Amino acid sequence: MIPRQEIDFQLYDCLNAAALCSHPRYAEHDRQTFDAVIENATRIAREKFADHAARADAEEPHFDGERVHMIPEVSEALGAIVEAGIIGSSFDFGDGGSQLPYLVTQAMMAQFDAANVGTSAYFFLTMGAANLIAAFGSSEQKDLYMRPLIEGRWFGTMCLSEPQAGSSLADIRTQAIPQADGSYSIKGSKMWISGGEHDLSENIIHLVLAKIPGGPAGTKGISLFIVPKYRVDAQGIPEHHNHIALAGLNHKIGYRGTTNTLLNFGESGATTGYLVGGAHNGLRCMFHMMNEARIGVGLGAAALGYAGYRYSLEYARTRPQGRPVAARDAMQDQVMIIAHADVRRMLLKQKAFSEGALALCFYGAKLVDELACSEDAERQSAYQQELDILTPIIKAWPSHFCVESNYWGLQVLGGYGYTRDYPLERIYRDNRLNPIHEGTNGIQSLDLLGRKVTMQNGAAFRLLMNHIREDIAGASEETALAPYCAQLEQACATVTVTTMKLCGVAMQGDLDRFLANSWEYLEMLGHTIIAWQWLRMARQACRTLASGNSDTDFLQGKLHTCRYFFLHELPRIERQAALLESLDDTLLTMPESGF
Amino acid sequence: MIPRQEIDFQLYDCLNAAALCSHPRYAEHDRQTFDAVIENATRIAREKFADHAARADAEEPHFDGERVHMIPEVSEALGAIVEAGIIGSSFDFGDGGSQLPYLVTQAMMAQFDAANVGTSAYFFLTMGAANLIAAFGSSEQKDLYMRPLIEGRWFGTMCLSEPQAGSSLADIRTQAIPQADGSYSIKGSKMWISGGEHDLSENIIHLVLAKIPGGPAGTKGISLFIVPKYRVDAQGIPEHHNHIALAGLNHKIGYRGTTNTLLNFGESGATTGYLVGGAHNGLRCMFHMMNEARIGVGLGAAALGYAGYRYSLEYARTRPQGRPVAARDAMQDQVMIIAHADVRRMLLKQKAFSEGALALCFYGAKLVDELACSEDAERQSAYQQELDILTPIIKAWPSHFCVESNYWGLQVLGGYGYTRDYPLERIYRDNRLNPIHEGTNGIQSLDLLGRKVTMQNGAAFRLLMNHIREDIAGASEETALAPYCAQLEQACATVTVTTMKLCGVAMQGDLDRFLANSWEYLEMLGHTIIAWQWLRMARQACRTLASGNSDTDFLQGKLHTCRYFFLHELPRIERQAALLESLDDTLLTMPESGF
Repeated sequence: MIPRQEIDFQLYDCLNAAALCSHPRYAEHDRQTFDAVIENATRIAREKFADHAARADAEEPHFDGERVHMIPEVSEALGAIVEAGIIGSSFDFGDGGSQLPYLVTQAMMAQFDAANVGTSAYFFLTMGAANLIAAFGSSEQKDLYMRPLIEGRWFGTMCLSEPQAGSSLADIRTQAIPQADGSYSIKGSKMWISGGEHDLSENIIHLVLAKIPGGPAGTKGISLFIVPKYRVDAQGIPEHHNHIALAGLNHKIGYRGTTNTLLNFGESGATTGYLVGGAHNGLRCMFHMMNEARIGVGLGAAALGYAGYRYSLEYARTRPQGRPVAARDAMQDQVMIIAHADVRRMLLKQKAFSEGALALCFYGAKLVDELACSEDAERQSAYQQELDILTPIIKAWPSHFCVESNYWGLQVLGGYGYTRDYPLERIYRDNRLNPIHEGTNGIQSLDLLGRKVTMQNGAAFRLLMNHIREDIAGASEETALAPYCAQLEQACATVTVTTMKLCGVAMQGDLDRFLANSWEYLEMLGHTIIAWQWLRMARQACRTLASGNSDTDFLQGKLHTCRYFFLHELPRIERQAALLESLDDTLLTMPESGF
Repeated sequence: MIPRQEIDFQLYDCLNAAALCSHPRYAEHDRQTFDAVIENATRIAREKFADHAARADAEEPHFDGERVHMIPEVSEALGAIVEAGIIGSSFDFGDGGSQLPYLVTQAMMAQFDAANVGTSAYFFLTMGAANLIAAFGSSEQKDLYMRPLIEGRWFGTMCLSEPQAGSSLADIRTQAIPQADGSYSIKGSKMWISGGEHDLSENIIHLVLAKIPGGPAGTKGISLFIVPKYRVDAQGIPEHHNHIALAGLNHKIGYRGTTNTLLNFGESGATTGYLVGGAHNGLRCMFHMMNEARIGVGLGAAALGYAGYRYSLEYARTRPQGRPVAARDAMQDQVMIIAHADVRRMLLKQKAFSEGALALCFYGAKLVDELACSEDAERQSAYQQELDILTPIIKAWPSHFCVESNYWGLQVLGGYGYTRDYPLERIYRDNRLNPIHEGTNGIQSLDLLGRKVTMQNGAAFRLLMNHIREDIAGASEETALAPYCAQLEQACATVTVTTMKLCGVAMQGDLDRFLANSWEYLEMLGHTIIAWQWLRMARQACRTLASGNSDTDFLQGKLHTCRYFFLHELPRIERQAALLESLDDTLLTMPESGF
């Protein structure tokens, strides 16, 4: 679990979450309500989710050909979520929600991620499905489907991928044939559907991408449908089985508590779907939700990184082994391993990666709130641009570097870390999903460089750099931070020069070479962004220290970890910039037969 | 499995393994016998080991309180090993072995590692135990214990760690009390003992580190003992249970086919042990074997890296998904994902890491042979020094970077890689042990910088650098390699300057600061060493290409991967050198309360 102190520092001190209450949308809330819901979520996560994380992993759901069986704790945990009204946290009062800021909701979600991602996925997906209907559904659809989702009586899924189409949604084959009553007959297979089948709720509402025959080719011909497991009558009572067949469960390295399914629609009988958001508008609907879904992935990765950090820290503080390198006297007592420089390296790396990643995800979540609240078109556009360019980084950086963080966490425990008696190995396995789902990290890097950096002639990139420079100017008021300010200024200059060079190549139409090293670009810009987040945290630490009455240890730890990130991690971007600026084509020119 | 072509290139073309036959020790062999034993091992690995790797992982051994149960394929596979005489491969003819070079044995072992590490561990450990008795046992001990091990009738283990003493062997507590008959009574617990209990062989011979009361403190008081599961009579017939109690099996993230045990000695009755190699000489005995054990770990990691590379390569060649970035027309057929730059990056990284790591491990294995054959004291000393300084790198570099390699292999498969239907996730889990066992990678970095680099006033380091420079001079005859020669020359200069600076700090007695960033040092020197191995392979590829009659695709692939390593990976050492030269003390000065 993430300690209250860390959440308070990030939400209130660094991001001034309380100020959101000055927006009319959040006027009924204040810091006390934020605190109360986060505390309550933390308690439920600890008591009802963390308790069975290991068991849910060891005894994964199984399908006997008729039903999916799973351990009873999952249902109990989700019952507590439903009872606490957590699914509706960010929904409008009018829809039965609590209309909390997305930022506050994300702080709650981080606790569930840290406690037990496998069980949490069921209600995360339900929130996502309800969110889509809230944005694009008709009022009838909202009444029939969204409300039961928000109330937690039904659960939801997202059905995008198919066995032959994962990254390339243009190639999905599921068909939606118009019926006389305005509904559609859905036929096809959907793969990797998390929460696709279970007995946890009365009904399951699948949000399905499919193609209406005769529509445009590729992604332009995709539409979105509500496809319930049980069709409902006009009063919303689940009545008839909608012939969605579970072809099988996927068995995975991690996230084992979440059923992951291959579903066949319209095979054993007619499957009815209901169009959402208009014909051929499906991808736009999905992308509307994508920013938030991707922030959710990044946050999950960061929370798992953080959870691993805390477990390994606890171990390092209490495991005696070895003696100081400068005083190796076998007659002396051993020291706790936290005293060893290399163990401190592994702890600092985890702390720098996971707290930096958390800061970035919370920053992104706050942008979602600012965007939702802002009524000034210019500011809205600025928030949207910043969110657009940050989203692929928010998804990919934490999911890549927090898996690495878990690698080091496991290493701190040595042989014990390799066993299932300690949670590190499970966290390491769970987190390995995050670089893959919601668009692989490779796809994120193409989205970042190929779409977000170049859009509107680089407007979002310039805006982001300006924003970083403003924060550097603010931080430079603290003399202790002067070297980091200078270093980040230099990093921004490097990143800008590299970006300009690459965009020049794109302008010449050489897209292959422009995008050849897109992952290096994402790492480079990502490290710069995380350094920026650390500078923001360090500045806040300086301010709070100066104000007195604060936990000096906590804040000194923040300052020292900022130093670590700037001295040990940020310098790698110079090499990446050099590679990118050289327009290296090694990846393109490797002969396929040479592999 | 590693293709014959790769093994031939590495062993014969790059390392001239056939020339070992000019040494009297290997005079009875020739390339044909080498080929035959490697082919035979490859066949057994494919047919008897690879076939049940997934099942052995899914159905791990379990202990019912009396016996350990495991799937029958394990016993069958090991039976094939015993029948083929593989355990005795590197032992002397006089001991019943085949007296093959260690290099050839390692090529065989790599195939078993690639096929199924969990089952292979049983006979690898047996070879190690026999090896220790061969080096330090009395002739009676050799007859009684070593021969049955070599014949594969009995299996062996190494018992070093204890629950409270893993990295710090100075703190082991197991006691060996002298008995009137010259034997010892062994009392204590040993942790992480692979192959510590099973019914696969008639007897298990444990090689146990313990302390004779009254001896020196710390590692100087450690002795080595033969401790059989069943005590044997004068004819070597296992007779009496020696009261080694299995306290439990450790359940791990990977390597699941190998029982990993907590053993209690002398708890339920007297456990008898027999001293090997003299009192208080145990650590020296173990370290005698350590070079080879650590090469084995590095090789296992490299082989798993390579296996993951080949699986992901096969997937990338046959999975259609997406279209070229420069021609995204949904009406066109999809391309195989090997066409995408970012997939090529993930493949090239794996190829560069795993083939580079294999080359280094084979290079180290050849040094073991040269050392064994050489009768010239000066050359012997040179081989020993080179082996000594390379060993921590051979253990740590492949085990760290080939886990990363497997991370990318899994990523190539996307969602499929995350499932247990494909071998990547298992390989990724199995390989995760290698950074931990046989001395954690952190310990290796301290051994490298704190002991090997500084020993004999840096003699081994200078010798290594001279050796690299000789190879650069040789490679510079190929004009195509000129840029890499220059880059490696520069890398050697950088590494040398950094090393001198650090050694200066050591001379001033500031050991904390000298060793503060030892892992960065290992990565820096390791990357330089792997670049050297790539230059050696590239030079050989140029020569073979010039000679005609060769597989151009294979050799061009080697040249291009060398280019990849030099342009994409080697440049990172500059940042590491800068950090090390700055004598950065961030790790040391982080306040413990700040974590």
